[in-house]
Amino acid sequence: MVRWEPGAAERLQKAALELFATRGFEQTTTMEIAESVGLTERTFFRHFSDKREVLFHGQQLLADAFLAGVDSAPAEASPLELVAAALQSSASFFPDERRAHSRTRQSVIDQNPALRERERHKLASIATTLADALRRRGVDEVAATLAAESGATVFSIAFTQWIREDEQRSLAGIAAEVLRELLTLTATAAERIPR
Amino acid sequence: MVRWEPGAAERLQKAALELFATRGFEQTTTMEIAESVGLTERTFFRHFSDKREVLFHGQQLLADAFLAGVDSAPAEASPLELVAAALQSSASFFPDERRAHSRTRQSVIDQNPALRERERHKLASIATTLADALRRRGVDEVAATLAAESGATVFSIAFTQWIREDEQRSLAGIAAEVLRELLTLTATAAERIPR
Repeated sequence: MVRWEPGAAERLQKAALELFATRGFEQTTTMEIAESVGLTERTFFRHFSDKREVLFHGQQLLADAFLAGVDSAPAEASPLELVAAALQSSASFFPDERRAHSRTRQSVIDQNPALRERERHKLASIATTLADALRRRGVDEVAATLAAESGATVFSIAFTQWIREDEQRSLAGIAAEVLRELLTLTATAAERIPR
Repeated sequence: MVRWEPGAAERLQKAALELFATRGFEQTTTMEIAESVGLTERTFFRHFSDKREVLFHGQQLLADAFLAGVDSAPAEASPLELVAAALQSSASFFPDERRAHSRTRQSVIDQNPALRERERHKLASIATTLADALRRRGVDEVAATLAAESGATVFSIAFTQWIREDEQRSLAGIAAEVLRELLTLTATAAERIPR
Protein backbone atom coordinates (compact mmCIF):
# COMPACT_ATOMS: atom_id res chain seq x y z
CA MET A 1 0.00 0.00 0.00
CA VAL A 2 1.29 3.44 -0.92
CA ARG A 3 1.48 5.77 2.06
CA TRP A 4 0.31 9.30 1.42
CA GLU A 5 3.20 11.74 1.85
CA PRO A 6 1.99 15.20 2.84
CA GLY A 7 3.76 17.78 0.69
CA ALA A 8 6.24 15.23 -0.62
CA ALA A 9 6.54 16.93 -4.02
CA GLU A 10 7.32 20.31 -2.42
CA ARG A 11 9.86 18.80 -0.01
CA LEU A 12 11.55 16.91 -2.83
CA GLN A 13 11.66 20.00 -5.01
CA LYS A 14 13.16 22.18 -2.27
CA ALA A 15 15.77 19.55 -1.39
CA ALA A 16 16.64 18.95 -5.05
CA LEU A 17 17.19 22.63 -5.74
CA GLU A 18 19.50 22.93 -2.73
CA LEU A 19 21.52 19.91 -3.84
CA PHE A 20 21.68 21.09 -7.47
CA ALA A 21 22.87 24.52 -6.32
CA THR A 22 25.53 23.28 -3.90
CA ARG A 23 26.81 20.11 -5.60
CA GLY A 24 25.80 20.66 -9.20
CA PHE A 25 22.92 19.22 -11.21
CA GLU A 26 24.93 16.42 -12.84
CA GLN A 27 26.47 15.33 -9.54
CA THR A 28 23.13 14.95 -7.72
CA THR A 29 21.23 11.64 -7.92
CA THR A 30 17.50 11.09 -7.44
CA MET A 31 18.38 8.75 -4.57
CA GLU A 32 20.27 11.53 -2.78
CA ILE A 33 17.40 13.95 -3.28
CA ALA A 34 14.89 11.49 -1.83
CA GLU A 35 17.08 10.45 1.10
CA SER A 36 17.88 14.03 2.05
CA VAL A 37 14.21 14.46 3.06
CA GLY A 38 13.74 10.94 4.42
CA LEU A 39 11.84 9.60 1.40
CA THR A 40 12.56 6.70 -0.94
CA GLU A 41 13.63 6.96 -4.57
CA ARG A 42 10.31 5.27 -5.45
CA THR A 43 8.46 8.16 -3.85
CA PHE A 44 10.59 10.56 -5.92
CA PHE A 45 9.52 8.80 -9.12
CA ARG A 46 5.86 8.94 -8.12
CA HIS A 47 6.16 12.72 -8.34
CA PHE A 48 8.77 13.37 -11.03
CA SER A 49 9.77 11.39 -14.12
CA ASP A 50 13.43 12.40 -13.65
CA LYS A 51 15.52 14.97 -11.80
CA ARG A 52 15.23 17.46 -14.63
CA GLU A 53 11.46 17.53 -14.20
CA VAL A 54 11.95 18.91 -10.69
CA LEU A 55 13.07 22.12 -12.40
CA PHE A 56 10.37 22.18 -15.07
CA HIS A 57 7.21 20.70 -13.59
CA GLY A 58 5.67 24.19 -13.17
CA GLN A 59 5.72 24.79 -16.94
CA GLN A 60 2.06 23.90 -17.52
CA LEU A 61 0.92 26.10 -14.63
CA LEU A 62 2.88 29.01 -16.07
CA ALA A 63 1.37 28.47 -19.52
CA ASP A 64 -2.06 28.35 -17.86
CA ALA A 65 -1.35 31.66 -16.14
CA PHE A 66 -0.60 33.28 -19.53
CA LEU A 67 -3.84 31.85 -20.94
CA ALA A 68 -5.89 33.02 -17.96
CA GLY A 69 -4.69 36.54 -18.73
CA VAL A 70 -5.88 36.27 -22.34
CA ASP A 71 -9.24 34.91 -21.16
CA SER A 72 -9.68 37.79 -18.73
CA ALA A 73 -9.12 40.52 -21.35
CA PRO A 74 -12.16 42.34 -22.75
CA ALA A 75 -13.58 41.28 -26.11
CA GLU A 76 -12.33 44.41 -27.89
CA ALA A 77 -8.70 44.01 -26.74
CA SER A 78 -6.09 44.35 -29.50
CA PRO A 79 -3.50 41.56 -29.93
CA LEU A 80 -0.86 43.31 -27.85
CA GLU A 81 -3.41 44.18 -25.17
CA LEU A 82 -4.13 40.45 -24.94
CA VAL A 83 -0.40 39.88 -24.56
CA ALA A 84 -0.17 42.64 -21.92
CA ALA A 85 -2.98 40.90 -19.97
CA ALA A 86 -1.19 37.55 -20.33
CA LEU A 87 2.05 39.06 -19.01
CA GLN A 88 0.33 40.58 -15.99
CA SER A 89 -1.38 37.28 -15.26
CA SER A 90 1.85 35.28 -15.66
CA ALA A 91 3.52 37.59 -13.14
CA SER A 92 1.05 36.43 -10.47
CA PHE A 93 2.82 33.08 -10.78
CA PHE A 94 5.97 34.76 -9.41
CA PRO A 95 5.13 36.62 -6.21
CA ASP A 96 8.07 38.32 -4.49
CA GLU A 97 8.40 35.51 -1.94
CA ARG A 98 9.32 33.20 -4.80
CA ARG A 99 12.16 35.39 -6.02
CA ALA A 100 14.91 33.62 -4.02
CA HIS A 101 13.73 30.24 -5.28
CA SER A 102 13.66 31.51 -8.89
CA ARG A 103 17.15 32.94 -8.52
CA THR A 104 18.57 29.62 -7.31
CA ARG A 105 16.73 27.69 -10.02
CA GLN A 106 18.13 30.01 -12.69
CA SER A 107 21.70 29.67 -11.39
CA VAL A 108 21.36 25.89 -11.69
CA ILE A 109 20.03 26.18 -15.23
CA ASP A 110 22.68 28.69 -16.30
CA GLN A 111 25.41 26.22 -15.40
CA ASN A 112 24.16 23.42 -17.62
CA PRO A 113 23.84 23.69 -21.43
CA ALA A 114 21.16 20.97 -21.67
CA LEU A 115 19.06 22.71 -19.02
CA ARG A 116 19.49 26.04 -20.80
CA GLU A 117 18.26 24.39 -23.99
CA ARG A 118 15.27 22.93 -22.11
CA GLU A 119 14.46 26.35 -20.64
CA ARG A 120 14.63 27.92 -24.11
CA HIS A 121 12.31 25.20 -25.34
CA LYS A 122 9.90 25.91 -22.46
CA LEU A 123 9.70 29.59 -23.44
CA ALA A 124 9.20 28.68 -27.09
CA SER A 125 6.30 26.40 -26.12
CA ILE A 126 4.72 29.14 -24.06
CA ALA A 127 4.96 31.49 -27.06
CA THR A 128 3.28 28.86 -29.25
CA THR A 129 0.53 28.28 -26.67
CA LEU A 130 -0.02 32.03 -26.40
CA ALA A 131 -0.17 32.45 -30.19
CA ASP A 132 -2.79 29.68 -30.37
CA ALA A 133 -4.85 31.46 -27.70
CA LEU A 134 -4.67 34.71 -29.69
CA ARG A 135 -5.83 32.91 -32.83
CA ARG A 136 -8.80 31.53 -30.91
CA ARG A 137 -9.61 35.15 -30.06
CA GLY A 138 -9.73 35.92 -33.78
CA VAL A 139 -6.24 37.41 -34.21
CA ASP A 140 -4.87 36.55 -37.64
CA GLU A 141 -1.97 34.12 -38.12
CA VAL A 142 0.92 36.57 -38.53
CA ALA A 143 -0.28 39.08 -35.94
CA ALA A 144 -0.79 36.27 -33.41
CA THR A 145 2.76 35.00 -33.90
CA LEU A 146 4.29 38.49 -33.78
CA ALA A 147 2.36 39.45 -30.65
CA ALA A 148 2.97 36.14 -28.84
CA GLU A 149 6.71 36.09 -29.63
CA SER A 150 6.97 39.70 -28.48
CA GLY A 151 5.22 38.68 -25.27
CA ALA A 152 7.66 35.83 -24.70
CA THR A 153 10.63 38.15 -25.29
CA VAL A 154 9.22 40.75 -22.88
CA PHE A 155 8.62 38.02 -20.29
CA SER A 156 12.14 36.68 -20.66
CA ILE A 157 13.80 40.11 -20.31
CA ALA A 158 11.55 41.06 -17.38
CA PHE A 159 12.19 37.77 -15.62
CA THR A 160 15.97 38.19 -15.98
CA GLN A 161 15.70 41.63 -14.40
CA TRP A 162 13.36 40.40 -11.65
CA ILE A 163 15.87 37.84 -10.36
CA ARG A 164 18.82 40.23 -10.39
CA GLU A 165 20.56 40.80 -7.09
CA ASP A 166 18.92 43.71 -5.19
CA GLU A 167 16.03 44.04 -7.64
CA GLN A 168 12.96 45.25 -5.67
CA ARG A 169 10.32 45.85 -8.34
CA SER A 170 7.60 43.25 -8.91
CA LEU A 171 7.68 41.11 -12.04
CA ALA A 172 4.36 42.66 -13.14
CA GLY A 173 5.88 46.15 -12.85
CA ILE A 174 9.03 45.22 -14.74
CA ALA A 175 7.08 43.45 -17.50
CA ALA A 176 4.89 46.53 -17.99
CA GLU A 177 8.02 48.70 -18.32
CA VAL A 178 9.69 46.37 -20.82
CA LEU A 179 6.51 46.17 -22.90
CA ARG A 180 6.34 49.95 -22.85
CA GLU A 181 9.95 50.07 -24.09
CA LEU A 182 9.00 47.81 -27.00
CA LEU A 183 6.12 50.14 -27.89
CA THR A 184 8.43 53.16 -27.74
CA LEU A 185 11.03 51.44 -29.92
CA THR A 186 8.52 50.54 -32.58
CA ALA A 187 6.80 53.93 -32.44
CA THR A 188 10.14 55.58 -33.27
CA ALA A 189 10.69 53.15 -36.13
CA ALA A 190 7.14 53.46 -37.51
CA GLU A 191 7.80 57.11 -38.31
CA ARG A 192 11.07 56.38 -40.08
CA ILE A 193 10.84 53.03 -41.85
CA PRO A 194 9.26 53.64 -45.27
CA ARG A 195 6.08 51.82 -46.19
CA MET B 1 47.93 12.82 -51.28
CA VAL B 2 44.48 14.36 -51.07
CA ARG B 3 42.96 14.97 -54.51
CA TRP B 4 41.23 18.28 -54.90
CA GLU B 5 37.53 17.71 -55.56
CA PRO B 6 35.97 20.59 -57.51
CA GLY B 7 32.69 21.56 -55.83
CA ALA B 8 32.67 18.46 -53.66
CA ALA B 9 30.90 20.23 -50.80
CA GLU B 10 28.12 21.46 -53.08
CA ARG B 11 27.69 18.06 -54.74
CA LEU B 12 27.57 16.34 -51.35
CA GLN B 13 25.06 18.83 -50.05
CA LYS B 14 22.76 18.47 -53.04
CA ALA B 15 22.93 14.67 -52.92
CA ALA B 16 22.37 14.60 -49.16
CA LEU B 17 19.30 16.78 -49.38
CA GLU B 18 17.79 14.56 -52.08
CA LEU B 19 18.43 11.43 -50.02
CA PHE B 20 17.09 13.02 -46.83
CA ALA B 21 13.94 14.10 -48.65
CA THR B 22 13.25 10.79 -50.36
CA ARG B 23 14.47 8.24 -47.78
CA GLY B 24 14.37 10.22 -44.58
CA PHE B 25 17.18 11.88 -42.60
CA GLU B 26 17.62 9.03 -40.10
CA GLN B 27 17.70 6.38 -42.83
CA THR B 28 20.46 8.05 -44.84
CA THR B 29 24.12 7.31 -44.04
CA THR B 30 27.13 9.48 -44.77
CA MET B 31 28.50 6.59 -46.84
CA GLU B 32 25.40 6.60 -49.06
CA ILE B 33 25.61 10.35 -49.50
CA ALA B 34 29.25 10.15 -50.56
CA GLU B 35 28.79 7.16 -52.86
CA SER B 36 25.78 8.68 -54.59
CA VAL B 37 28.11 11.31 -56.09
CA GLY B 38 31.09 9.01 -56.55
CA LEU B 39 33.05 10.25 -53.55
CA THR B 40 34.37 8.47 -50.47
CA GLU B 41 33.06 8.83 -46.93
CA ARG B 42 36.46 10.32 -46.04
CA THR B 43 35.84 13.10 -48.52
CA PHE B 44 32.45 13.67 -46.89
CA PHE B 45 34.11 14.11 -43.51
CA ARG B 46 36.65 16.55 -44.92
CA HIS B 47 33.71 18.87 -45.62
CA PHE B 48 31.15 18.12 -42.91
CA SER B 49 31.55 16.90 -39.32
CA ASP B 50 28.35 14.84 -39.60
CA LYS B 51 25.27 14.54 -41.80
CA ARG B 52 23.39 17.11 -39.72
CA GLU B 53 26.00 19.73 -40.60
CA VAL B 54 25.03 19.39 -44.26
CA LEU B 55 21.78 21.11 -43.29
CA PHE B 56 23.33 23.76 -41.05
CA HIS B 57 26.70 24.68 -42.46
CA GLY B 58 25.33 27.95 -43.89
CA GLN B 59 24.46 29.28 -40.44
CA GLN B 60 27.56 31.46 -40.04
CA LEU B 61 27.10 32.95 -43.52
CA LEU B 62 23.50 33.82 -42.67
CA ALA B 63 24.55 35.45 -39.39
CA ASP B 64 27.19 37.39 -41.34
CA ALA B 65 24.52 38.60 -43.76
CA PHE B 66 22.47 39.98 -40.84
CA LEU B 67 25.57 41.72 -39.48
CA ALA B 68 26.48 43.19 -42.86
CA GLY B 69 23.04 44.84 -42.88
CA VAL B 70 23.66 46.43 -39.48
CA ASP B 71 27.07 47.64 -40.65
CA SER B 72 25.59 49.21 -43.77
CA ALA B 73 22.96 51.26 -41.88
CA PRO B 74 23.59 54.98 -41.35
CA ALA B 75 24.97 56.18 -37.99
CA GLU B 76 21.67 57.76 -36.95
CA ALA B 77 19.59 54.60 -37.55
CA SER B 78 17.24 53.66 -34.69
CA PRO B 79 17.41 50.11 -33.26
CA LEU B 80 14.56 48.83 -35.43
CA GLU B 81 15.98 50.52 -38.50
CA LEU B 82 19.18 48.57 -37.86
CA VAL B 83 17.05 45.43 -37.67
CA ALA B 84 15.22 46.37 -40.87
CA ALA B 85 18.60 46.74 -42.61
CA ALA B 86 19.73 43.38 -41.20
CA LEU B 87 16.56 41.72 -42.50
CA GLN B 88 17.00 43.17 -45.98
CA SER B 89 20.61 42.04 -46.03
CA SER B 90 19.76 38.54 -44.79
CA ALA B 91 17.24 38.20 -47.60
CA SER B 92 20.06 38.53 -50.14
CA PHE B 93 21.22 35.16 -48.79
CA PHE B 94 17.98 33.65 -50.20
CA PRO B 95 17.58 34.63 -53.84
CA ASP B 96 14.53 33.20 -55.57
CA GLU B 97 16.59 30.49 -57.28
CA ARG B 98 17.29 29.06 -53.83
CA ARG B 99 13.62 28.75 -52.91
CA ALA B 100 13.22 25.13 -54.07
CA HIS B 101 16.32 24.10 -52.14
CA SER B 102 15.07 25.89 -49.00
CA ARG B 103 11.66 24.24 -49.32
CA THR B 104 13.20 20.76 -49.49
CA ARG B 105 15.53 21.51 -46.60
CA GLN B 106 12.63 22.71 -44.46
CA SER B 107 10.54 19.62 -45.22
CA VAL B 108 13.45 17.45 -44.01
CA ILE B 109 13.78 19.51 -40.83
CA ASP B 110 10.03 19.53 -40.13
CA GLN B 111 10.00 15.74 -40.08
CA ASN B 112 12.62 15.37 -37.37
CA PRO B 113 12.23 16.74 -33.81
CA ALA B 114 16.01 16.96 -33.19
CA LEU B 115 16.52 18.91 -36.42
CA ARG B 116 13.63 21.24 -35.51
CA GLU B 117 15.32 21.86 -32.16
CA ARG B 118 18.63 22.55 -33.94
CA GLU B 119 16.90 24.98 -36.30
CA ARG B 120 15.30 26.78 -33.35
CA HIS B 121 18.71 26.98 -31.73
CA LYS B 122 20.17 28.43 -34.94
CA LEU B 123 17.58 31.21 -34.97
CA ALA B 124 18.17 31.91 -31.28
CA SER B 125 21.91 32.26 -31.96
CA ILE B 126 21.26 34.64 -34.81
CA ALA B 127 19.09 36.78 -32.51
CA THR B 128 21.89 36.83 -29.93
CA THR B 129 24.48 37.76 -32.56
CA LEU B 130 22.21 40.52 -33.84
CA ALA B 131 21.60 41.88 -30.31
CA ASP B 132 25.37 42.00 -29.74
CA ALA B 133 25.81 43.95 -32.98
CA LEU B 134 23.13 46.44 -31.90
CA ARG B 135 24.88 46.92 -28.53
CA ARG B 136 28.12 47.63 -30.37
CA ARG B 137 26.18 50.35 -32.20
CA GLY B 138 25.30 51.91 -28.83
CA VAL B 139 21.78 50.48 -28.42
CA ASP B 140 21.08 49.81 -24.73
CA GLU B 141 20.77 46.30 -23.35
CA VAL B 142 16.98 45.92 -23.23
CA ALA B 143 16.28 47.74 -26.50
CA ALA B 144 18.93 45.63 -28.26
CA THR B 145 17.35 42.38 -27.08
CA LEU B 146 13.80 43.53 -27.91
CA ALA B 147 14.79 44.73 -31.38
CA ALA B 148 16.94 41.68 -32.21
CA GLU B 149 14.32 39.17 -31.02
CA SER B 150 11.68 41.04 -33.01
CA GLY B 151 13.97 40.80 -36.03
CA ALA B 152 14.39 37.05 -35.57
CA THR B 153 10.61 36.59 -35.27
CA VAL B 154 9.98 38.67 -38.41
CA PHE B 155 12.64 36.67 -40.27
CA SER B 156 11.13 33.37 -39.18
CA ILE B 157 7.57 34.33 -40.19
CA ALA B 158 8.76 35.79 -43.51
CA PHE B 159 10.88 32.75 -44.30
CA THR B 160 7.92 30.41 -43.63
CA GLN B 161 5.82 32.44 -46.06
CA TRP B 162 8.62 32.62 -48.65
CA ILE B 163 8.87 28.81 -48.95
CA ARG B 164 5.11 28.27 -49.20
CA GLU B 165 3.86 26.55 -52.33
CA ASP B 166 3.10 29.12 -55.06
CA GLU B 167 4.61 32.05 -53.14
CA GLN B 168 6.06 34.53 -55.66
CA ARG B 169 7.18 37.50 -53.56
CA SER B 170 10.86 37.90 -52.65
CA LEU B 171 11.98 37.24 -49.08
CA ALA B 172 13.03 40.89 -48.78
CA GLY B 173 9.53 42.02 -49.77
CA ILE B 174 7.80 39.64 -47.38
CA ALA B 175 10.12 40.58 -44.50
CA ALA B 176 9.37 44.27 -45.06
CA GLU B 177 5.63 43.54 -44.94
CA VAL B 178 5.86 41.47 -41.77
CA LEU B 179 7.97 44.14 -40.07
CA ARG B 180 5.38 46.71 -41.11
CA GLU B 181 2.68 44.53 -39.54
CA LEU B 182 4.64 44.47 -36.27
CA LEU B 183 4.85 48.28 -36.34
CA THR B 184 1.11 48.55 -36.99
CA LEU B 185 0.30 46.12 -34.18
CA THR B 186 2.39 48.02 -31.67
CA ALA B 187 1.16 51.41 -32.86
CA THR B 188 -2.41 50.30 -32.11
CA ALA B 189 -1.36 49.06 -28.69
CA ALA B 190 0.68 52.16 -27.84
CA GLU B 191 -2.46 54.25 -27.93
CA ARG B 192 -4.41 51.90 -25.69
CA ILE B 193 -2.05 50.33 -23.16
CA PRO B 194 -1.79 52.74 -20.20
CA ARG B 195 1.62 54.09 -19.24
